[in-house]
Formats: sequence, C-alpha cells, structure tokens
Amino acid sequence: MKAGESLAQTSVTRVKDGDLSADLSDVLAVEEPLEIRIGFAVNGKVEHRAISITMRTPGEDGELAIGFLFTEGIIKSQDQVKQVRHCGLKIGKVKNTLDRAAALNSNTIRVDLAEDIDLDLKRLERHFYTTSSCGVCGKSSIEALQTVADRLNDEGFRVDRDVVHSLPQTLRASQDVFDRTGGLHASALYNATGELEIVREDVGRHNALDKVIGAMFLAGEMPLSDKILLVSGRASFELVQKALMAGIPILAAVGAPSSLAVELAAEFGMTLIGFVRDGRFNIYTGKTRIN
Amino acid sequence: MKAGESLAQTSVTRVKDGDLSADLSDVLAVEEPLEIRIGFAVNGKVEHRAISITMRTPGEDGELAIGFLFTEGIIKSQDQVKQVRHCGLKIGKVKNTLDRAAALNSNTIRVDLAEDIDLDLKRLERHFYTTSSCGVCGKSSIEALQTVADRLNDEGFRVDRDVVHSLPQTLRASQDVFDRTGGLHASALYNATGELEIVREDVGRHNALDKVIGAMFLAGEMPLSDKILLVSGRASFELVQKALMAGIPILAAVGAPSSLAVELAAEFGMTLIGFVRDGRFNIYTGKTRIN
Repeated sequence: MKAGESLAQTSVTRVKDGDLSADLSDVLAVEEPLEIRIGFAVNGKVEHRAISITMRTPGEDGELAIGFLFTEGIIKSQDQVKQVRHCGLKIGKVKNTLDRAAALNSNTIRVDLAEDIDLDLKRLERHFYTTSSCGVCGKSSIEALQTVADRLNDEGFRVDRDVVHSLPQTLRASQDVFDRTGGLHASALYNATGELEIVREDVGRHNALDKVIGAMFLAGEMPLSDKILLVSGRASFELVQKALMAGIPILAAVGAPSSLAVELAAEFGMTLIGFVRDGRFNIYTGKTRIN
Repeated sequence: MKAGESLAQTSVTRVKDGDLSADLSDVLAVEEPLEIRIGFAVNGKVEHRAISITMRTPGEDGELAIGFLFTEGIIKSQDQVKQVRHCGLKIGKVKNTLDRAAALNSNTIRVDLAEDIDLDLKRLERHFYTTSSCGVCGKSSIEALQTVADRLNDEGFRVDRDVVHSLPQTLRASQDVFDRTGGLHASALYNATGELEIVREDVGRHNALDKVIGAMFLAGEMPLSDKILLVSGRASFELVQKALMAGIPILAAVGAPSSLAVELAAEFGMTLIGFVRDGRFNIYTGKTRIN
C-alpha cells in the first residue's frame, strides 16, 4: 500500500454463510499521520512549532490544517495566513493547488502566520477544556469557550423538517462516489433548502469537519451562519465546539449526541439534532429553527 | 445533567413520519473530560505531571488511566504502580474501590508510580508515531512500535469461524443492559470459545479499549494472549496498537479497518478481522488462527 492517496488496495479472505472466498481484492481507507506545524515571528525572528499530529486520510491536508487552526481559535481571518507549505512546496491560498500538494505524499504541513498576528501561545499548549484555575469539568470546558465564541443569532435562519429528513440521502448519493471502503467519516454542509454544498471524508471524524471548515475558510465563506452541518456519526463536545467556532446554527448527526454536546449547544443557542435516519430525528436544542 | 454518572436525562422533541412529539424524556451518554496525571520520583523528589486529557464517559476512571499508561508503554507490570488516586481519595489497586472513586465525580485521576521505575520522559511528550529522525509516516509509526512490542506468537491459539460470527450478538445481549443511548462505543474480550469475559463502554473508542485493558492489567491477567477482542466501530491504527501492546492475537471489528491498521497487524502477526455483522466477516491478516 502506498501513502498519499485516500484509497489503498488490499487482499482479503471473505467468510459469508459458511462459504470462504480467499484472496479477494478489497479497498481500504488510507490512514496516515499528519504533523501540523505553524511558523510565526517572535521579536522579528521566525519560529516553527509542531502543534498537532493527527491520524488522517490524505488528500486535503491544507484544508485540514487551516480548519484545525481556525476551530482551535489560533487564526480568525484569511489575512492572518501568509502561506501554507506542504513538504517544501509553497501552496499559497488558492484552493486548487492544495490538491497538487497532497499529490506529493507529504505528511508534514506548515502554516506560516502573518507577522502582526496576536498569537496566544498558551492556547497552543492546551485545549480549551483545560483550565488550570477551576479544574477539569464539562462546565469549565463550556465556560472557556465563552471567551472565544459568541452565542448564535436566533433570528432569521429557519429550515423545514423535510429538509432535515433529506440530508442523509443527499450525502449517501455523493458518498457512492467517495466511500467505497465503509471506513470513512463524512461531514457535509447544506444550504437552507437542503442542497449539498461541500462534503469531506476522513478516517477521523474531527478531521472531516476540520476539512469542511478549512475549505470554507480558504474560500472566504466564514462565518457559516446560513448552513446546516451533517456529520455521519455521533455528535461529541468537540464536533459541536468546531461547528460553533464556524458559526454554524444547525448541527445534525446520524448518530446520538453526548451529554456535553447537548449542554454546549444549549448554552450557545445552536440547534442540535440527532438520529437523523429511517424517516425520523430528535431535536435536542434550538427547535425554533425547524419549521 | 449531573457529572460523574454514565447516563444523563434530557428532554427531546421527536419527529417521525411527519408526527412531532415534544418534550419527551431521553437518555444521553455522559461525556466529561478526564485529566490523567502521574506522580513519579526524580532524584528522590516526587513530581506530578498531567500527561493526557481525554473526553470520556465517567465510571471506570482508574481502569482507563491504567490502560492508557500501559498501552502507551509507560507502565509494564503491576508492581510499577504504587497507587491510583481519584481527587484526593486513595484508591489502591483493588478493583472494587475504583467504582467508589468514580462516585465522587472527580475528573482528575493520578497514578503514582513506583520509585525504581525507569520512566522514559520523552515518551510522555510525544506519541509513538512521532519520530523526529525520519519524519512522520505510517512506516515510521510501525517501526517505532518495534522497540516496545513483540511480534505475536502464531502457535496454538485457534478459533472456529462460528465463534467469530457469534461475537457481536453476545456483545449486543450484554449491551442491552448498558447502552440505552446509542452513543457509546464498546470493547469486549472473549475466550477462544466465544464466551464474553469483559465489556466496557465509552463515548470514545480508545477509552473503551483502555478500560478493558486497564481492568485486565489490574486483575493481573496480562498478557491477553488467549483472548479475542471485539470493537464496536472501525479498526484504526491506534486500536491495533493498543491491542498489540496487550498481546491480543485476534482483533475483530464490526466496522472497516484502515490501511495502517492492516499494515500494523500484518507486521506484528495479529489476526485482523473486519465487518463482523450480518453473518459475514473479512479476514485481512493472520487467517491461520481462524479454523
């Protein structure tokens, strides 16, 4: 198997109904580590620092790195990004060239930040939910977010319930092209009428969402205040946190939400929907946005 | 919702077939951060260090911390653990008291290591798959494991294919008791005849496996060289890595494996099985163990 592509060939022995078929060809989702580095100026001198290693599916590494930095609160606007480099290649901010970079099969990506960026180095060391003052707990995790994210506006953005029912089917239709492995998580953005605008897939659920948000950031589309987000699995605290940083008002999950996901969504006025499948769904918070 | 329990009550609006039922009571899987700290002696002086924060379902925090330390290669045997403390409470190594500790609702747990332990502090800073020498890639991630894990013995342990088919049903029968939320991942160990020996559930898939391994470590049952592991979701590099550290010869997943999971299993002689559902399964590596 070769790194740097999102699918890999393998050989498999299939057992079904007592029958055994040996050495069939099968397709796997590629998983490879990605190191995300930032470059920044301190007293006129450029420093580099590795801030994350994530196991991801190669393909949209620039989007992933940018989405990660944005949802972690490290970058806020496009002018704070000088360039994105992938293993020595200068990628710039143009979306198409990111694909070219991925073709290089590099597992290290560097985002060079603008010189005047007010970088919170402490934020690089610890995640939001670590606060030394009051100990670690769900409540402190939510309170820490209040310094970097605003409560969502509850005016205006409304969606018909039929649109919510239609989201997974629209995603599946597009996934027929992408996921032939059964091993990828998907994140997808839709407009208010349920039209699919972007979908990204990854072995890691956080990565799939970072790629979506990073792609929209690079396209100058932030905040995503008129979009619906669908995630293929469960809704965790971290997925709600990332959606919140991007200003997404409605998060729908095919699976169940966790307790802390529901508490965070309620605190910031996000509409959180779970179990969107088999002609049903549950609204946990923010039901006024669903007609 | 109250922290420190594994289930939380919530209110939900259910939409099904055009009908809307408001304000129903529903159950969520609890997600709360856990800070894992270690205490160790340096030149006769005790130091403490936070080495991980994970979003987990409360309930078996001692097992989780111990399983994490073991699968990260930080501890190897029971005599290296002096005590496990949960928010000031001395837990010791007795399993029953770990449950009592969880009842305290603390989100910080500390494992005090024996004084003569040869602690690789660099290992605390970086994961296995980070090797500064040869860059980040799947191959280097696998090579880094070769310094801490042995290739599995291929003699002796054999399992009938009917046992493999039966694993998910046995797990589901036990999950009826546990997971009423649809939001929990499960890890379960079975013996060669398919009898369930232990199951743990968590919002995080790595945590569920760390709890299983930690519980067996505390019970003095390592290595797990005559056990089958079933995980409820997909098989990633990290799950194979953890199973490998515990010496588990057969890993079966209800979902798909990733490319790097298959490569790692092949390199260390592990039997990796995917898509164990609907009367079928795929053997990716080590098929000699399946009769």
